[in-house]
Amino acid sequence: MALTFCCLTFAVDPASLQDFCVADKFACLLIAVKLNGFACKNPAWVQANDFSFSGLHNPGNTGNPFGSAITPVTVAQIPALNTLGISLVRIDYAPWGVVVPHYHPRATEIITVIEGSLEVGFVTSNPDNRLISKTLQKGDVFVFPVGLVHFQRNVGHMNAVTISGLNSQNPGVITIGNAVFGSKPDISTDILAKAFQVDKNIVQQIQGKF
Amino acid sequence: MALTFCCLTFAVDPASLQDFCVADKFACLLIAVKLNGFACKNPAWVQANDFSFSGLHNPGNTGNPFGSAITPVTVAQIPALNTLGISLVRIDYAPWGVVVPHYHPRATEIITVIEGSLEVGFVTSNPDNRLISKTLQKGDVFVFPVGLVHFQRNVGHMNAVTISGLNSQNPGVITIGNAVFGSKPDISTDILAKAFQVDKNIVQQIQGKF
Amino acid sequence: MALTFCCLTFAVDPASLQDFCVADKFACLLIAVKLNGFACKNPAWVQANDFSFSGLHNPGNTGNPFGSAITPVTVAQIPALNTLGISLVRIDYAPWGVVVPHYHPRATEIITVIEGSLEVGFVTSNPDNRLISKTLQKGDVFVFPVGLVHFQRNVGHMNAVTISGLNSQNPGVITIGNAVFGSKPDISTDILAKAFQVDKNIVQQIQGKF
Amino acid sequence: MALTFCCLTFAVDPASLQDFCVADKFACLLIAVKLNGFACKNPAWVQANDFSFSGLHNPGNTGNPFGSAITPVTVAQIPALNTLGISLVRIDYAPWGVVVPHYHPRATEIITVIEGSLEVGFVTSNPDNRLISKTLQKGDVFVFPVGLVHFQRNVGHMNAVTISGLNSQNPGVITIGNAVFGSKPDISTDILAKAFQVDKNIVQQIQGKF
Amino acid sequence: MALTFCCLTFAVDPASLQDFCVADKFACLLIAVKLNGFACKNPAWVQANDFSFSGLHNPGNTGNPFGSAITPVTVAQIPALNTLGISLVRIDYAPWGVVVPHYHPRATEIITVIEGSLEVGFVTSNPDNRLISKTLQKGDVFVFPVGLVHFQRNVGHMNAVTISGLNSQNPGVITIGNAVFGSKPDISTDILAKAFQVDKNIVQQIQGKF
Amino acid sequence: MALTFCCLTFAVDPASLQDFCVADKFACLLIAVKLNGFACKNPAWVQANDFSFSGLHNPGNTGNPFGSAITPVTVAQIPALNTLGISLVRIDYAPWGVVVPHYHPRATEIITVIEGSLEVGFVTSNPDNRLISKTLQKGDVFVFPVGLVHFQRNVGHMNAVTISGLNSQNPGVITIGNAVFGSKPDISTDILAKAFQVDKNIVQQIQGKF
Repeated sequence: MALTFCCLTFAVDPASLQDFCVADKFACLLIAVKLNGFACKNPAWVQANDFSFSGLHNPGNTGNPFGSAITPVTVAQIPALNTLGISLVRIDYAPWGVVVPHYHPRATEIITVIEGSLEVGFVTSNPDNRLISKTLQKGDVFVFPVGLVHFQRNVGHMNAVTISGLNSQNPGVITIGNAVFGSKPDISTDILAKAFQVDKNIVQQIQGKF
Repeated sequence: MALTFCCLTFAVDPASLQDFCVADKFACLLIAVKLNGFACKNPAWVQANDFSFSGLHNPGNTGNPFGSAITPVTVAQIPALNTLGISLVRIDYAPWGVVVPHYHPRATEIITVIEGSLEVGFVTSNPDNRLISKTLQKGDVFVFPVGLVHFQRNVGHMNAVTISGLNSQNPGVITIGNAVFGSKPDISTDILAKAFQVDKNIVQQIQGKF
Repeated sequence: MALTFCCLTFAVDPASLQDFCVADKFACLLIAVKLNGFACKNPAWVQANDFSFSGLHNPGNTGNPFGSAITPVTVAQIPALNTLGISLVRIDYAPWGVVVPHYHPRATEIITVIEGSLEVGFVTSNPDNRLISKTLQKGDVFVFPVGLVHFQRNVGHMNAVTISGLNSQNPGVITIGNAVFGSKPDISTDILAKAFQVDKNIVQQIQGKF
Repeated sequence: MALTFCCLTFAVDPASLQDFCVADKFACLLIAVKLNGFACKNPAWVQANDFSFSGLHNPGNTGNPFGSAITPVTVAQIPALNTLGISLVRIDYAPWGVVVPHYHPRATEIITVIEGSLEVGFVTSNPDNRLISKTLQKGDVFVFPVGLVHFQRNVGHMNAVTISGLNSQNPGVITIGNAVFGSKPDISTDILAKAFQVDKNIVQQIQGKF
Repeated sequence: MALTFCCLTFAVDPASLQDFCVADKFACLLIAVKLNGFACKNPAWVQANDFSFSGLHNPGNTGNPFGSAITPVTVAQIPALNTLGISLVRIDYAPWGVVVPHYHPRATEIITVIEGSLEVGFVTSNPDNRLISKTLQKGDVFVFPVGLVHFQRNVGHMNAVTISGLNSQNPGVITIGNAVFGSKPDISTDILAKAFQVDKNIVQQIQGKF
Repeated sequence: MALTFCCLTFAVDPASLQDFCVADKFACLLIAVKLNGFACKNPAWVQANDFSFSGLHNPGNTGNPFGSAITPVTVAQIPALNTLGISLVRIDYAPWGVVVPHYHPRATEIITVIEGSLEVGFVTSNPDNRLISKTLQKGDVFVFPVGLVHFQRNVGHMNAVTISGLNSQNPGVITIGNAVFGSKPDISTDILAKAFQVDKNIVQQIQGKF
């Protein structure tokens, strides 16, 4: 009988129990129960490729309604990131392309502009809800604190490219539109009508788009 | 010359450096620079009142558009919660009152119904955006995982009351409507129109309400 | 051959590796080796019931020598609390009922009085061993810092009820009497006689009660 | 007007913000408000002596009712331990000397016998309250898990000596006898009589000794 | 009398006590005692510039013996990184330029090649001391686990550029050559001769270079 | 078919999910996939021996080129150290014996001299690379902060003995010589020649010794 599993513990802080714990993807294929992270590959079988990923220089496809494309490099792409608490992401923006308001529940993001000009911003928590925003040029760096709603918009007529570091192996993404108007099943129209102080038919209209 | 300050370090985990570190509110009144938390009151001057708060049995005023009222008991109310990583909150709900979609960036919430019936739910992160919801009766307990968008709605014709524990001395609240449509200044109409896939005039109409 | 397991990693802080990791109790039934926590249930199989518990409005049975009854809501009752670092507890007190001196090695407790009047207190560590105590009325809130010995006593002629939040999925309870005089096997009479500065026969008399 | 302060943040995990943060004791002498730990001495003024302590080879004075003496080396003795999360302690035991039941709320203890023979033990939490004990000889090592009640007793006719490592800069000590029967002011006799299932006069007799 | 200070606590994990704690550099100018991190700027005075840095597109000056140049973006460059646990670094490499063996005591590094070809590698701890290395091309990503010795070398005839994310606001750098042969004062020749199993005059020759 | 596994999560901080989690070495013998730590032995089968180790009073064999011998007591020797975050080590030094420059990526070390006289020191990070050193006598205690390169040398004509506490169940050791000149395979001669500013033939000569 074949039975294996996919077990892991995670290290939010850098003091893990060994040099590294490369995620064992083969074990995961056979897994019967899901686990919080991944099993460690036998260190003797670890190879340099477990620590690497190729293709971050390739533009993503921005041919979508938002005009943006995300290329993540998390533990899903590099198994050695397991337990190490960091990831990268490349984002491509068509002219006026947008990364719509979202937040990462498990990571702060530090973003740098490789090409183009971007308007970026984040909003502080209640009760201030202050928007802190800035237009970034090539070579500029900006910080989105963990858990705060933020967005990026290409404000130039050229394509734009950014690279970000995030301090989690799996930062998570919660896009406000998807979470609020696109959940499966829908949140009650009544609740959203109160939340956004609009008529229910506008809520239903927005829900219909998601 | 009077000069004092308000300094603190926080303990996310329970291994702090002493038994407790009661926030020194008097020091804070005189503070020149803001700090991450609060200074510790001299342990010799600490009193039982520093560890307590009164009035959580009093109903909040639900006479507002949402029909709900929040009574928090965080480090702002009990200085001894400083460094201890927990807080309580009482919520009152008028009939059909709602706590609109929001999240806590720094805490999981465990809620129990003291009186009434509530529909509660939260939405998972991308890409699933699954709504996990349930109607709770008196004595039911439910969990909202840290960082996920959630809501509560009184589904009865009576007032309802809940008490929640949250694992942070200052959980933070980000109400989706406020953060997205009510920020100061506003997020560009264009970005929100793309985010919610609606016309800009609807965005402006919603922004006008906040 | 049937073989499965029960694996988990815990999150003292809220930055876990996914939205949640619901404890897989079925896996635990078949487990051969014990683990530090629980495996995660496949997220696709998770249901709202995994996040809930019913019956916290029911009084516990205080018909015992202490006149108190504990109803915990930890990861043992709500599998979704796994990795989320919080729990609740309801306590019922008969008139003059007592929760005898004990401590929680892994959690601070924030308690609120739902009904009745209680004397509560905790003792600081060496060398001060200061008792910080207060009589609480309905609606009062009090904090017992992690790891400190504390107690509660109903000081009214009516039943009393409290609800507490604790910042661990499994706070642990160490009752001083049980640990010191009721261990299995007994601690040497000689050691306890020195510890409490009494005759050995008094130690043996107390040990006999446990 | 001279005014300075004594501020610090602590590092439970090893990822502090610099190589070290030597506690600035001079600042502490002038401090007006108490803080959670200590300020960092200017790194340029740090000296090797800030990282050292002398005299751990000297026997402590065991001429006391317990026949034992504790010589701690914590952040109080070595300012550089500030933020580094470890300490040492030497204990001397006269023949049949005892370190009475106590626990450390913030540290696990690993103990080794330098000279002599000791009975050591700890008790697990509710509901098992199992005593795990062993007689140690010279060169033996034993572990007391964080937060559990433990004790040591010299079981030979010679002096004994142990050295322990504890994983906190300030582990804290809660001696059961002191906390329960020796608090200032006393815990109500009635509560302790119920806790230990003895007559109130026995409780008062024990309290009188502390 | 003017007196202020520069106090902070840091957040290795994302559960800080507020949305952010921008380092207050002005306070630091006046500081009398050094602290573990930085004070928080008053949130009302925070501006978008506190979250940003410009110039990461500018090549560093590689006209030095190593043929490489480091441009860090840590809390020293962006005060808002204070407590947020992440930083970026750009590195320029002249043809055959090298970043010599070094390690970061407080961060894992995830590196991506913006231009050029690089040989990179790291060495595992005792007893294996295995070199895990790979030649990276433009768009490749690689991971150096926290605390392990690693290096990069431009293996092309063109300039090379990399950008890295590191999961600390202040990762720290320990260059092996500097720490071992360039310390002030020198480590005893005798110790280094044993450490590297060479004659003392070779040790002295190397020390003379640093 | 026999299949079991060896699963664990680690506790950098002391708030684990139960009293202890003794490493299950039997499970590890049968393990198919490696894990980040160890499974917990069934608490009912735990014995005092799982918490103990014997023989730390025995001198190690210093008959080697360095004239020193390390006797570690980590989770490999005491399975109960699993999740508890501490370990001990005894070191023996022949006259003029040396523990060559090394560092622990996961632990601060606090060392005390049981017998003899030692020169000890550590080097701070870039850019200062300051050597902080001291000659220790019997009974002296010294601290090596986590991640910094340090060394010890017997400066007397007698054997010396030290005992250290380290705040990790598995501190890890990276010996500079082994990591830089003794890796398998070798680091390129060219890189090391630049790193140490010496001719390649000297690098090759040193590499030949490892």
